[in-house]
Amino acid sequence: MSELPIAPIERILRNAGAPRVSTEGAEALKKLMEEFANEIAVKAVKMAKHAGRRTIRADDIMMAKEQ
Amino acid sequence: MSELPIAPIERILRNAGAPRVSTEGAEALKKLMEEFANEIAVKAVKMAKHAGRRTIRADDIMMAKEQ
Repeated sequence: MSELPIAPIERILRNAGAPRVSTEGAEALKKLMEEFANEIAVKAVKMAKHAGRRTIRADDIMMAKEQ
Repeated sequence: MSELPIAPIERILRNAGAPRVSTEGAEALKKLMEEFANEIAVKAVKMAKHAGRRTIRADDIMMAKEQ
C-alpha cells in the first residue's frame, strides 16, 4: 500500500510552516495518511454494503470517519 | 488547501474492496486526509521548532501524531 505521491505531502508540510522537510519526514507523514485513509476506506465499504449499495458515497465516508 | 490528486485516493478505496466509488465519495476522503495531514503537519512544525531545528524529521511527525 503506497499510493500517494510525495510532492503534495511536502507542500502540506511547507504550508504548515516547515522551512525544510527531510525525505524521511515526508515519508512518515505519507505512511500515516495512507493508514488513516485505509482505515476509513475499509469502514466505508462496510457502510455501503450495509446500505445495499455497491457505490461508495460521501455519506459512507463521513459515517466511517465517525466510527 | 487542496493538494492531493484524486486517482490514488480512488485506488485506496478500491483496494479496500469498493466495487464503485462516486466522485463525491473520493472527494470526501481526500478532504479528510488533507485535514488529518494538516493537523499533524502543524504540530510537527512546532515539535521541530521546540527542538531547535528548521528541518521536519520523521520523529517530529511521529511525536505530532501522538499529541
